[in-house]
Amino acid sequence: MKTICRQNLVAAVLVGALAFTTIARANDPLPSWNDGSAKKSIIQFVTKVTTADSPDFVPVPERIATFDNDGTLWAEQPMYFQIQFALDRVTALAPQHPEWKTMEPLNHLVAGNTKAFMAGGEKSLMAAMAATHTGMTTEEFSKTVNDWITTARHPKLGKLYTDLVYLPMLELLVYLRANGFKTFIVSGGGIEFMRPWTERVYGIPPEQVVGSSCKLKFEMRDGKPVLMKLPEVNLIDDKEGKPVGIQMHIGRRPIAAFGNSDGDLQMLQWTTAGSGARFALIVHHNDAKREWDYDRTSPIGKLDKAWDEAIAKKWTVVSMKDDWNTVFPR
Amino acid sequence: MKTICRQNLVAAVLVGALAFTTIARANDPLPSWNDGSAKKSIIQFVTKVTTADSPDFVPVPERIATFDNDGTLWAEQPMYFQIQFALDRVTALAPQHPEWKTMEPLNHLVAGNTKAFMAGGEKSLMAAMAATHTGMTTEEFSKTVNDWITTARHPKLGKLYTDLVYLPMLELLVYLRANGFKTFIVSGGGIEFMRPWTERVYGIPPEQVVGSSCKLKFEMRDGKPVLMKLPEVNLIDDKEGKPVGIQMHIGRRPIAAFGNSDGDLQMLQWTTAGSGARFALIVHHNDAKREWDYDRTSPIGKLDKAWDEAIAKKWTVVSMKDDWNTVFPR
Repeated sequence: MKTICRQNLVAAVLVGALAFTTIARANDPLPSWNDGSAKKSIIQFVTKVTTADSPDFVPVPERIATFDNDGTLWAEQPMYFQIQFALDRVTALAPQHPEWKTMEPLNHLVAGNTKAFMAGGEKSLMAAMAATHTGMTTEEFSKTVNDWITTARHPKLGKLYTDLVYLPMLELLVYLRANGFKTFIVSGGGIEFMRPWTERVYGIPPEQVVGSSCKLKFEMRDGKPVLMKLPEVNLIDDKEGKPVGIQMHIGRRPIAAFGNSDGDLQMLQWTTAGSGARFALIVHHNDAKREWDYDRTSPIGKLDKAWDEAIAKKWTVVSMKDDWNTVFPR
Repeated sequence: MKTICRQNLVAAVLVGALAFTTIARANDPLPSWNDGSAKKSIIQFVTKVTTADSPDFVPVPERIATFDNDGTLWAEQPMYFQIQFALDRVTALAPQHPEWKTMEPLNHLVAGNTKAFMAGGEKSLMAAMAATHTGMTTEEFSKTVNDWITTARHPKLGKLYTDLVYLPMLELLVYLRANGFKTFIVSGGGIEFMRPWTERVYGIPPEQVVGSSCKLKFEMRDGKPVLMKLPEVNLIDDKEGKPVGIQMHIGRRPIAAFGNSDGDLQMLQWTTAGSGARFALIVHHNDAKREWDYDRTSPIGKLDKAWDEAIAKKWTVVSMKDDWNTVFPR
């Protein structure tokens, strides 16, 4: 009898502990975030803008949150993934473009000499972008992106690019939406490069993606309307272009913005300059073991001026190493 | 006893009839639409794309509906309301711009000679637009629009412009949203002219408004970031520009589109060229008594090519006179 009682007691305690853990986990909207000032600042902000009798309460329609993509929602090393896509596309398209064999700088890529190509810097990249991102319809381009993103793998990590998104940021997107926020991407990356997969990967539909774009032209082709991608810049949605992109697409100032580099500085300035409660967060890549370690001097994702301003203005800075217990979902 | 019975019977019949009417009204999502082919076609379309086991079922995220504004959601005679706004603003701003007194064509407006000003046609209008829509911040412009739209009255009808919206179209917006549609405005009108009031009047938030726009420039002014409206066109969201605006902002082809003029033709073509169930509707202004009567030869809201195509392709054409039992909400 006594034994049975003790066994029952032990079982009850075990079940209770398990239930407690489960409840604690279920109650934690950000389980991949370690307890610390970054996580605390997020939860405090969301709580105060969503609490009806709080002086900082914000009505649902005004709960706009904008996220940079490269380096904020997914990785960006050793080169922006969209650049890798462009290089892969040059190689794939080369057989249809024999003229590229003698055309600087694409000839280097066609010959498999990526190093010589990359030595051309931005000029080379623009040539690859023009050759692979324009001169087709929006639907043709979308299909190409879909084919690539579901098969191509990161050269160093061997994973699908869509597996190189940050689990803590996915949780943050879900948490914000559960609290009435509309989540937008505001990225220097191409708007048409992101839209084919952001809904599946981030739960962000195409109409909530803001990005760099080329001009489009409406045409009739065999009696069917198409939109051609022209080799002319429409918007560079980076730095000063981010608040412009936000106003053009959203038309309402975000109350929260999330970035990781100097390219996001103006978006964070624009967001925090509004009245009422505002939130700005920067992801600091300082995790060489699980991801990468770079900031002030990195050619990609340089975090210098925005870091200084974050410290001066007490914006939330996330230490990837210390604040995240998990980086990638798998 | 017999009398009481009869009275009860009459009462019961009356109550029953009243209840039936109430139920019928409550069940009618479009009470300002007369029963007829237009109303029927709308309900048939919405039913088939929202019925789970229908071959035409469309998942909620893809239920995108786009609406022209001028002549489709609100009136547009005797001139686009935004033009009236521009003329009113020239008059209001004239004291701060003594140079306008001698500057063609604004001098005519300043002198109160609207006729001489309008004789200049599009050139005059562009001058008035540049003088009143650019050179200020987006927030300053938004405040000006708000002040005007809440006080200015239509010269002929004496009503607030926001009372010149079409009740049947308001019901249609509500009906579509209740069926999982996301409703967008896609208008040749200015995006920044519409956004200050579309949420209040149509239930359409700023981020779901697509329109013509000028370029914006991010600047620091007294240490605060602002967006300046520049006198350079960014997008003319009319005719061929409408599918471009749709792709830029929404990034997904609508399944239903609503217009009233040749300016909407390409939007309707783009919408209906997609696969699966599609819906296109044109409002025909043929109601001189309650609104206006104009189509093929009107300088404003010309409906000619789009009318021919609507008939050829069996799009829904709404006769304002016959299909709407009420035009304005008050």
